[in-house]
Amino acid sequence: MALDSSWFTEPVEATGTAFSLKLGEKLHEEQTPYQKIEIFRTETFGYLMSIDGCTMVSTRDNFLYHEMMSHVALNSHPDPQNVVVVGGGDCGTLREVLKHPEVRKATQVEIDERVTRLAEQYFPELCTANNDPRATLFFGDGIQWMKDAAPGSIDLIIIDSTDPVGPAEGLFGKKFYLDCLKALKPNGMLVQQSESPLLHLPLISEMHQTMRVAGFAQTHLFTFPQPLYPSGWWSGSIACKSAGALAERLDASAVQALDAQYYNAAIHRGAFALPNYVAKALA
Amino acid sequence: MALDSSWFTEPVEATGTAFSLKLGEKLHEEQTPYQKIEIFRTETFGYLMSIDGCTMVSTRDNFLYHEMMSHVALNSHPDPQNVVVVGGGDCGTLREVLKHPEVRKATQVEIDERVTRLAEQYFPELCTANNDPRATLFFGDGIQWMKDAAPGSIDLIIIDSTDPVGPAEGLFGKKFYLDCLKALKPNGMLVQQSESPLLHLPLISEMHQTMRVAGFAQTHLFTFPQPLYPSGWWSGSIACKSAGALAERLDASAVQALDAQYYNAAIHRGAFALPNYVAKALA
Repeated sequence: MALDSSWFTEPVEATGTAFSLKLGEKLHEEQTPYQKIEIFRTETFGYLMSIDGCTMVSTRDNFLYHEMMSHVALNSHPDPQNVVVVGGGDCGTLREVLKHPEVRKATQVEIDERVTRLAEQYFPELCTANNDPRATLFFGDGIQWMKDAAPGSIDLIIIDSTDPVGPAEGLFGKKFYLDCLKALKPNGMLVQQSESPLLHLPLISEMHQTMRVAGFAQTHLFTFPQPLYPSGWWSGSIACKSAGALAERLDASAVQALDAQYYNAAIHRGAFALPNYVAKALA
Repeated sequence: MALDSSWFTEPVEATGTAFSLKLGEKLHEEQTPYQKIEIFRTETFGYLMSIDGCTMVSTRDNFLYHEMMSHVALNSHPDPQNVVVVGGGDCGTLREVLKHPEVRKATQVEIDERVTRLAEQYFPELCTANNDPRATLFFGDGIQWMKDAAPGSIDLIIIDSTDPVGPAEGLFGKKFYLDCLKALKPNGMLVQQSESPLLHLPLISEMHQTMRVAGFAQTHLFTFPQPLYPSGWWSGSIACKSAGALAERLDASAVQALDAQYYNAAIHRGAFALPNYVAKALA
């Protein structure tokens, strides 16, 4: 059965899969210096932002991604005070980061200010922490920003970017990882969205290898559902500057205070459970 | 962007979502007395069987569903000797069940023999246990079969059916659950595929309630990725005839011997970790 234009469809030729959401109407479209951003009203997922034809964020299911890209790494770091989000222009990750009282400073480095301005308009619930005194919203190139960052100054870098093609490609390379390593404190960590454990396993494997070649002592994969992205199953990768740095700070009342929809201590632990075929590929 | 007929698409109007696989060609189509079965060759997921336009099973990702619908419940039962699979005509669940040496008898009760015959042709790897001396393939109505089953004779019932509309609707009702209860031994269990934790939470909640109203002492939800099904995130529900019957038999060498691609002890434990919003809905 064919799908007509009453659906938003993201066909991914490389994986031979497509995901579609019933529309709604298109509410906005613009070409920024970096990418084409569109906003749709969908029938069942609330608003949808797409970038260059790829689904980025929906009202209904963004909590999965944002909670897992923030809380897993934050609760795996012994004391994350200074956090940097690279990308993440919809501000949802920043909001989750700032739920942690131990975070004293959170900087969001997004290349395309229009992503944030449109998020403020169509996803205001993701932007509620933008005026937190601990937050800084910087609009510019994350690669350059990291190159210029003060050495040994950051506890946790969260790379919340688009896929490793186009503007975000450099965020998956050795040069960028070297700059991250330099910017991190000795027990610092990096967490990065790392695509689908079913569809992109060679990419994940290569990414972990690149992180280790760059000098990270350890890498860890975790997985979570994300219906909006290809296969509906997504992953994040944590890279630790020092061996043995991975903590497990799952104090019941602190976790409860995050007021998360998906994340909790059992989910945290379960997310690191790797399928046999994934563990084998990463061994 | 519209999708043409070079894709297999399952649009689900009720959830406003669609999943598509790039084809390939259609290899087979037939209308049985029960349903329309089609077989396609896809570009990246191997063969695909669809029933009444819904994706049922693909070569590439069926291991997720089959392993989780069998091993989780089998390793949650103290001593599963007599196992019945209701539905499951592609034989993938049966194959996984028979990997357990403690299982002495496994009966597959599939209403549509054509599903099995086509699986033998296009998914032969799922049918490798069909000639196991412990296996019985019965073709007939699961609801009637369960009504006629000897009381107190079964350890584990696995309901591996299509969605709760059409021929499978009766498998989600109180009458059927009562017949299952009668057929189960005192420490017996039932496990049933229970749709998407994102898209079908009200259904899951109602299902657990119906199970308890029918007389099951406990119900437990577990989740797993399943790219082929709506949202890519799926669930199974275990109902226990007696309170406290849920075991955790995760002996390392026994789990290793299952030779699973996805399932292992950590995955087993992690699968029961419920997202906050799901736990709240089921409370």
